[in-house]
Amino acid sequence: MTDFFKGISPVKFEGANSTNPLAYRHYNKDEVVLGKTMEEHIRPGVAYWHSFAWEGGDPFGGRTFDRPWFDNGMDGAKLKADVAFELFDLLDMPFFCFHDADIAPEGATLAESNRNVRAIGEIFARKMETSRTKLLWGTANLFSNRRYMSGAATNPDPEVFAYAAGQVKNVLELTHELGGANYVLWGGREGYETLLNTKIGQEQDQMGRFLHMVIEHAEKIGYKGQILIEPKPQEPSKHQYDFDVATVYGFLRKYDLHTKIKCNIEVGHAFLANHSFEHELALAASLGILGSVDANRNDLQSGWDTDQFPNSVPETTLAFYQILKNGGLNSGGWNFDAKVRRQSLDPADLLHGHIGGLDVLARSLKAAAALITDGTYDKTVDARYAGWNEGLGKDILGGKLSLDDLAAKVDAENINPQPRSGQQEYLENLINRFV
Amino acid sequence: MTDFFKGISPVKFEGANSTNPLAYRHYNKDEVVLGKTMEEHIRPGVAYWHSFAWEGGDPFGGRTFDRPWFDNGMDGAKLKADVAFELFDLLDMPFFCFHDADIAPEGATLAESNRNVRAIGEIFARKMETSRTKLLWGTANLFSNRRYMSGAATNPDPEVFAYAAGQVKNVLELTHELGGANYVLWGGREGYETLLNTKIGQEQDQMGRFLHMVIEHAEKIGYKGQILIEPKPQEPSKHQYDFDVATVYGFLRKYDLHTKIKCNIEVGHAFLANHSFEHELALAASLGILGSVDANRNDLQSGWDTDQFPNSVPETTLAFYQILKNGGLNSGGWNFDAKVRRQSLDPADLLHGHIGGLDVLARSLKAAAALITDGTYDKTVDARYAGWNEGLGKDILGGKLSLDDLAAKVDAENINPQPRSGQQEYLENLINRFV
Amino acid sequence: MTDFFKGISPVKFEGANSTNPLAYRHYNKDEVVLGKTMEEHIRPGVAYWHSFAWEGGDPFGGRTFDRPWFDNGMDGAKLKADVAFELFDLLDMPFFCFHDADIAPEGATLAESNRNVRAIGEIFARKMETSRTKLLWGTANLFSNRRYMSGAATNPDPEVFAYAAGQVKNVLELTHELGGANYVLWGGREGYETLLNTKIGQEQDQMGRFLHMVIEHAEKIGYKGQILIEPKPQEPSKHQYDFDVATVYGFLRKYDLHTKIKCNIEVGHAFLANHSFEHELALAASLGILGSVDANRNDLQSGWDTDQFPNSVPETTLAFYQILKNGGLNSGGWNFDAKVRRQSLDPADLLHGHIGGLDVLARSLKAAAALITDGTYDKTVDARYAGWNEGLGKDILGGKLSLDDLAAKVDAENINPQPRSGQQEYLENLINRFV
Amino acid sequence: MTDFFKGISPVKFEGANSTNPLAYRHYNKDEVVLGKTMEEHIRPGVAYWHSFAWEGGDPFGGRTFDRPWFDNGMDGAKLKADVAFELFDLLDMPFFCFHDADIAPEGATLAESNRNVRAIGEIFARKMETSRTKLLWGTANLFSNRRYMSGAATNPDPEVFAYAAGQVKNVLELTHELGGANYVLWGGREGYETLLNTKIGQEQDQMGRFLHMVIEHAEKIGYKGQILIEPKPQEPSKHQYDFDVATVYGFLRKYDLHTKIKCNIEVGHAFLANHSFEHELALAASLGILGSVDANRNDLQSGWDTDQFPNSVPETTLAFYQILKNGGLNSGGWNFDAKVRRQSLDPADLLHGHIGGLDVLARSLKAAAALITDGTYDKTVDARYAGWNEGLGKDILGGKLSLDDLAAKVDAENINPQPRSGQQEYLENLINRFV
Ligand SMILES: [Co+2]
Ligand SMILES: [Co+2]
Ligand SMILES: [Co+2]
Ligand SMILES: [Co+2]
Ligand SMILES: [Co+2]
Ligand SMILES: [Co+2]
Ligand SMILES: [Co+2]
Ligand SMILES: [Co+2]
Repeated sequence: MTDFFKGISPVKFEGANSTNPLAYRHYNKDEVVLGKTMEEHIRPGVAYWHSFAWEGGDPFGGRTFDRPWFDNGMDGAKLKADVAFELFDLLDMPFFCFHDADIAPEGATLAESNRNVRAIGEIFARKMETSRTKLLWGTANLFSNRRYMSGAATNPDPEVFAYAAGQVKNVLELTHELGGANYVLWGGREGYETLLNTKIGQEQDQMGRFLHMVIEHAEKIGYKGQILIEPKPQEPSKHQYDFDVATVYGFLRKYDLHTKIKCNIEVGHAFLANHSFEHELALAASLGILGSVDANRNDLQSGWDTDQFPNSVPETTLAFYQILKNGGLNSGGWNFDAKVRRQSLDPADLLHGHIGGLDVLARSLKAAAALITDGTYDKTVDARYAGWNEGLGKDILGGKLSLDDLAAKVDAENINPQPRSGQQEYLENLINRFV
Repeated sequence: MTDFFKGISPVKFEGANSTNPLAYRHYNKDEVVLGKTMEEHIRPGVAYWHSFAWEGGDPFGGRTFDRPWFDNGMDGAKLKADVAFELFDLLDMPFFCFHDADIAPEGATLAESNRNVRAIGEIFARKMETSRTKLLWGTANLFSNRRYMSGAATNPDPEVFAYAAGQVKNVLELTHELGGANYVLWGGREGYETLLNTKIGQEQDQMGRFLHMVIEHAEKIGYKGQILIEPKPQEPSKHQYDFDVATVYGFLRKYDLHTKIKCNIEVGHAFLANHSFEHELALAASLGILGSVDANRNDLQSGWDTDQFPNSVPETTLAFYQILKNGGLNSGGWNFDAKVRRQSLDPADLLHGHIGGLDVLARSLKAAAALITDGTYDKTVDARYAGWNEGLGKDILGGKLSLDDLAAKVDAENINPQPRSGQQEYLENLINRFV
Repeated sequence: MTDFFKGISPVKFEGANSTNPLAYRHYNKDEVVLGKTMEEHIRPGVAYWHSFAWEGGDPFGGRTFDRPWFDNGMDGAKLKADVAFELFDLLDMPFFCFHDADIAPEGATLAESNRNVRAIGEIFARKMETSRTKLLWGTANLFSNRRYMSGAATNPDPEVFAYAAGQVKNVLELTHELGGANYVLWGGREGYETLLNTKIGQEQDQMGRFLHMVIEHAEKIGYKGQILIEPKPQEPSKHQYDFDVATVYGFLRKYDLHTKIKCNIEVGHAFLANHSFEHELALAASLGILGSVDANRNDLQSGWDTDQFPNSVPETTLAFYQILKNGGLNSGGWNFDAKVRRQSLDPADLLHGHIGGLDVLARSLKAAAALITDGTYDKTVDARYAGWNEGLGKDILGGKLSLDDLAAKVDAENINPQPRSGQQEYLENLINRFV
Repeated sequence: MTDFFKGISPVKFEGANSTNPLAYRHYNKDEVVLGKTMEEHIRPGVAYWHSFAWEGGDPFGGRTFDRPWFDNGMDGAKLKADVAFELFDLLDMPFFCFHDADIAPEGATLAESNRNVRAIGEIFARKMETSRTKLLWGTANLFSNRRYMSGAATNPDPEVFAYAAGQVKNVLELTHELGGANYVLWGGREGYETLLNTKIGQEQDQMGRFLHMVIEHAEKIGYKGQILIEPKPQEPSKHQYDFDVATVYGFLRKYDLHTKIKCNIEVGHAFLANHSFEHELALAASLGILGSVDANRNDLQSGWDTDQFPNSVPETTLAFYQILKNGGLNSGGWNFDAKVRRQSLDPADLLHGHIGGLDVLARSLKAAAALITDGTYDKTVDARYAGWNEGLGKDILGGKLSLDDLAAKVDAENINPQPRSGQQEYLENLINRFV
């Protein structure tokens, strides 16, 4: 037991009237909603990088956090692991997620780096025997080191591709051994800083090949978890290839990967790509590639990826609605890919962030469930499309009618369709009844 | 001969030193560049809607233009056609483009509307016998009339789908008869104003079916022109399905249309989707779906679609480079989907817009051609990727190596790739030598 | 009594459990919060233009609404006035706001236009004798007619300035006669479409002179209401002079108007200027120019001014907090500068928009009041700045210390200030307890 | 002489036909344009921080550059100074700019930090005796160290204010001693990360007091250079107080500083604030607060401050036009607040960035001068406003007419002003003749 969180007791559910800032007011993990517990619905996770590896820097300022594990090699990494599991326990969090570079220091060679990662992985394995926190997903950091500055799989230098392959192999196997429910690939450097020095087609072929290798390796080692791509339009690259869900879908189709890989959708990345989060969820669900989500939010006025904890129940309710209609996230969950602000220096701030975020998720889940249970909303939307289930609509979708047929029909029956109210304000008010 | 352009003489090429505002200073249509004339490279066109149908309104103000053909039914439409061809002739423009609703007034029924369109189509046909202006593409306006407020193919009401089908059939056939080189579909209302009342998957299936009908009808009537989709992220809809090139590609793949349909890429739409225009071109080229372009520009500070005439040679040069590397646009061209500002009231302003735009295209074409002819730029980029043409790179792309193979190789050879300069500033300066 | 709202009964407060979509669930006008009734706090108003004059058009589509008063001159205007007051009554709305051009048709001359406005003004006066709805503010529409396309007060043509003056004089006097609590100036065309044809300094001088004339005229006729400027960064102009609160403040200072004029702050305009609404409120309050607010919201992904009804309690609570800390809005109120979507065709939709918006305001008012009553939040923020109330902080602000003094003190006392947590997540969670 | 730029010869002007990437093709410092040499017009400077202190990191990756002076305390700082002046000499650059933190390592106390800065300052002084490079401006870095995370002058802790005062005193005096033409204040942390913990009015009062102290100290020590504020809307803070030129003007007015302080306007900051650069220049000129400029450009698709070297002649020409019409920048100049991309690893890349940027400035200067010399453009714009120089316009601006007078005049003379073309396309084409 370290003394990092000294004086902080395990966070309990105390109900909506509690004024204890270190209690859950809405997240009651065993409370049953639509037939499953809150924990089973949300499957929340802590992101190792933001809470333990990030130092508080920004483009105009250095480290603000003062953590005893910084600058201390493998000893620091071990201390960090201890503190991490203490946070998981304090929060009673069922999951966590990690990048290799978050958990262990880089070595002089890939082999040494991988050994470092495995050494910490063994510590994780031991801790997971007694902790209830499981691994939601693992991933390889293919963006921080300068060797990846021009891409990993999409680097102009094939040796960088090879290096990345060696790194992914290691983390994929570790994820498998730790029972990770998913494996994520986020291509922060798979894109470009300037199109002037870039061959898009060439680089996409490289990326397609890389993903096939990952799929093949997962099959080879018997890993059954879901492989996920996390879309993001930009930052750090000026333009990333996995721009958004629609872009990823086209890419997966082109390289015949769409039955193997799904999306890990982050709130803030949706926003940066000029979509609402619920749009990305609905689209991914309709395309069959909704895998998991990264819970956070973006500042509405910032053009960069702020990775703040979620705090708006109305917004998150719409997301939960999409997920519930999709039948849940299966092996996915809600990873808090969120960091406390660089001015939030205190250990307790790490708890405030997660508690607030999880309470927002809990309220949102309950609101979305109530909306569905009430049924008025779904009925209203279904009624809007009723014409497609029979007669003309059914025939059109069934491929029975041509342009000629339809043109003739319009003329013959003098069809002159009258618009009907889209009822947006009514629907917004209806939703607001539940949030 | 109407008196609309009274006092304006045909626009001639007078060379870069001319101070005549109604002369081309750079566009010399017969000048040969990289083996083709400027006209063959650019294939520029006038957009009927912006120059003749738009009234100068904006969300906070009504009509500013005072055109003698407004508010005058079929007589107005005929006068408008006369003036349009006078502009084509004055500009010596090889192409034009139109929507059905631009050229003829809506009738009481679809049949009457279509008849009106055909009547003007016949006038076009007669004019085209003596004019050198051809049809770059035709399209149906499926967005202005209130019946389409909730979508055309993606409307919740199948009768609206049928109505749209009858309209497209008519314009597709007219386009065929007029020898149109392409047929365009722009889905301004194929999207949503609020996700709250929308079933994305249902609507996409409708759109997929609609496009198949269009392809089938084109084949049935023997139309050989290219069918094009024009991506746009939003406006008028809050979110359009054809968001950008990548999104359209995924959609085409899903509905197995990617060998039949290409993209008509508009500068301002690329910008609204948070891409550079050259990105959209390069991506479409790499995916094999680069069809045609809509030449314009967006105001850099406006969040709406400003459709201004192009005026930046450096920007357009990068676009031409992508097109030249693609081997040109084939049946496509550069349609000026651009309008003079609502304060540009005078008939001469219509000429200023097109002359300035065409001169920018001409300078850009010559600059891109010179860049390619010089060869330094291409050589520099090719060298960056040279590693993928042999040895390790070739084996990776050739599918000969697995994650295990690569990991073993990195270890065995102690591979530790060193980054190389991306040379962005050098390349930018190199480009600037030619613009 | 017209039959426009046939079948719709007056909207009553029915409490949070009501499922009646045409009832208030939170807005209980006589409920007392922090010593005043909800109605006194909110002072809500209907905007005549959006609900009665807007036709449902957008840049790509025409009228969607089917209102019996359209296209019918003064008879239509009278019917419109009847229906407007019916809506005010149905909603039990204490205020409304209007532009001259919303209420009466333009005549052939300014004199005729002004007479038309006065004729409807007299109808308003009569209706206001029996209705409880009062005038929150009036304003002149100096942007829709083509004569204003290049500005009103800032037009290059002094005759346009004169025309605008004649229009403002008329509406200012009518506002005075109708007991309007405020008079608003929104400069939609006071800006530019291109800087290329614009002299900023010249135009600002014109605008300064215009505002002085308005102030002088108000004093001359004895009008005691507050004169307000409504900031907006752009749309319809590419760049408007009244960009945001800070810009307006500098302008008022330059022309020595800052003690005479305050701001009417619109939610969506704050967003378009890349500020949060609460920022604009807090800034205006600190500068002493917070006058009134336009309640609406902007679509988060649209770059244009969407003027939707407010629907987020968390967001609006932060706004109410700023207003309550400012001691309220005095003569100002919450004007619903919001329109139902162009697909919301039904008369009932007009009610849904206002009911939902007003319920959001009511919930937000109560949440902000509870936050203040609880006191924890204010105490936390006060504590953060406590150092400025005494000792060093007080001496600095009191002007007692120079750079030399402070440098010497830092050296002498070896001052090395340690940062303290900004507590953002804690504060966000605290706020979330009340929303 | 270090070997950092080994093999690179001094950059000479070789003319537009040169293909030497390390030559000026347009910047010919002694060439006379409108009566002054290019160097006198542009007064270009190198920014110490970007070229020598920045390590190539970004939010997702660490240092990419490999500079021999990194991590080496005062010895490194001395080597850095040597290399810096070698670059100034190679580029024949007349100016440079610096922050205290760029040039010397932070010490354990403010006193030690200031001594370090002074030690390097003495090295600068010695080098400046033999180099022709002068100091355009100095500034204190009040944003990188964690003590400033919540602001410097606007910090909730008065001791941070005092610390900042001690730092500014030191750099202001050093700037004075080095003959710096200006002293700049950029308030990267003077703003907030969340309004929830912030008192805007309190913080603005602190900032006002701080600036008065700076002015008073400059007067006390006899410093005659211009004091400048550099506006920026955000980054690193979520919202900065010096948002843009208009905001700074209002602030200066409020605290009665507008006759003492001017603006240093950065291209990319204008863009982030949703203005064109030329707008900020024109506005500042009209307000009398145009001081100096930071030359760079922003990526058009990135939401963050990319600080790239300028590369668009058309854009920069419009900026130069505004500056030339303002009579130049007086003590100001064009500081390259620009950095080579993090992938531009080679020493030569530092030269490519500055050469390309300076050539763009030179072309733009010549283009703007030619535009002015030609005179057509100015005449066209003057003619547009001619009505304000006499008769009605003159009387309005002269304060001779009231709303009543104008209204009466419109009626009496039946004034009905007709709009005139804004000629935007004509003017754009006219400009394009010169770029
Ligand atoms: Co993420
Ligand atoms: Co993120
Ligand atoms: Co467009
Ligand atoms: Co287009
Ligand atoms: Co408003
Ligand atoms: Co608005
Ligand atoms: Co700067
Ligand atoms: Co910058």
